[in-house]
Amino acid sequence: MTIIKNITVLFLIGAVLLSCNEHNKSARISPSESQASTLFAKGKQVTNDNFTGTVWLENLIQADSLNQNSVGSVTFEPGGRSKWHTHPAGQILLAIDGIGYYQEKGQPKKILRKGDAIKCPPGIPHWHGASPDSKFVQVAITGREKGETVWLEPVTDKQYNSYK
Amino acid sequence: MTIIKNITVLFLIGAVLLSCNEHNKSARISPSESQASTLFAKGKQVTNDNFTGTVWLENLIQADSLNQNSVGSVTFEPGGRSKWHTHPAGQILLAIDGIGYYQEKGQPKKILRKGDAIKCPPGIPHWHGASPDSKFVQVAITGREKGETVWLEPVTDKQYNSYK
Repeated sequence: MTIIKNITVLFLIGAVLLSCNEHNKSARISPSESQASTLFAKGKQVTNDNFTGTVWLENLIQADSLNQNSVGSVTFEPGGRSKWHTHPAGQILLAIDGIGYYQEKGQPKKILRKGDAIKCPPGIPHWHGASPDSKFVQVAITGREKGETVWLEPVTDKQYNSYK
Repeated sequence: MTIIKNITVLFLIGAVLLSCNEHNKSARISPSESQASTLFAKGKQVTNDNFTGTVWLENLIQADSLNQNSVGSVTFEPGGRSKWHTHPAGQILLAIDGIGYYQEKGQPKKILRKGDAIKCPPGIPHWHGASPDSKFVQVAITGREKGETVWLEPVTDKQYNSYK
C-alpha cells in the first residue's frame, strides 16, 4: 500500500512539473522571435570617422531630384555617438529602440526613448548617440536640398558623460 | 510517521507549484506590456471623409518654416484606406506593422510589410491602406513646401479588391 502511495505521489509531482514546463514553452519568447521584431535591418557598420564607437547604418530612402529627403536607420551600440555636426536643411529623428542621447550646443542633453520624435533645426551644432548602457536605434530623416551634413569635432568623453 | 510523510509530500507539491508560478510570471508578457511594445501611439480617430473605414492618426512632427516636412503615424484597421490623392512635394512611407497596400494610378497594387520603405512621387495619384485581414501601421513623411495634399475620389471596393 505504501509503495502504491509513493508511486502515485511521484506521478503527481511529475505531472505538475510537465504541465509547468509546457506552460512556460508557450509563454516564452525565443531570441530568434525577439530579433525578428526589429523594425529595420541593422545595415552595414559605419567605417568613416564621423562617429565614435560602433555604429550601423541601413539606408532606407535615397534623396533624389523629386524628393530631397534621405531616410536611414542608425543603430548605435552602447557608448556609440556621432561627432558634433550640423544639417544645412535640418533633420528629424524618430527613436525606434533603446535609450539614446541628443544634445544641441549649449543646451542640456536630452534622453530619447522609443516613440520620441524630435527636430534638429538647420545649422545648429548637435550630436546624437546611444546611452552608455543601452544601444539606441533611430530613424533619421535628413533634407539634402541645401547641401550635405557638416561634420565638426568629436564629442569628448567629458561631454558625453556630462548631464548638461 | 505516515502523517509526517503525507505533510512532507504536500509541502513538496506546493513548493513545485509555487516555483512553477514564479517562473511563468517572469516569462509571460502581459497584454499591457505587449501594447507598450507598439512604437508610436495610435493617436486620434480620423473623422474627415478622406478615408474609408477606421483610421487613426498620431502627429509626430509638424511642418514649420525651417523644416517643411510633417511626420505622422497612421494606423489603418483592416479594410481601412485613403481616397486617391496626390502630394505636391511627394511623400515617403515607412511600414511599421501589419500588412498594407500601396497603389499608384495605372500600376499594380504593392503589398507593404514591416520594414518596407517607399516613395510616393510628387503629383502621382495613389492610395494606401490596410489589407482586408490585417491592420497596417505606417509612418508618413510629407513635404509641405509645395502645398497640401490634393484629395481625389474614393477607392472603390472593386479597386481595393483587385490585384492590379
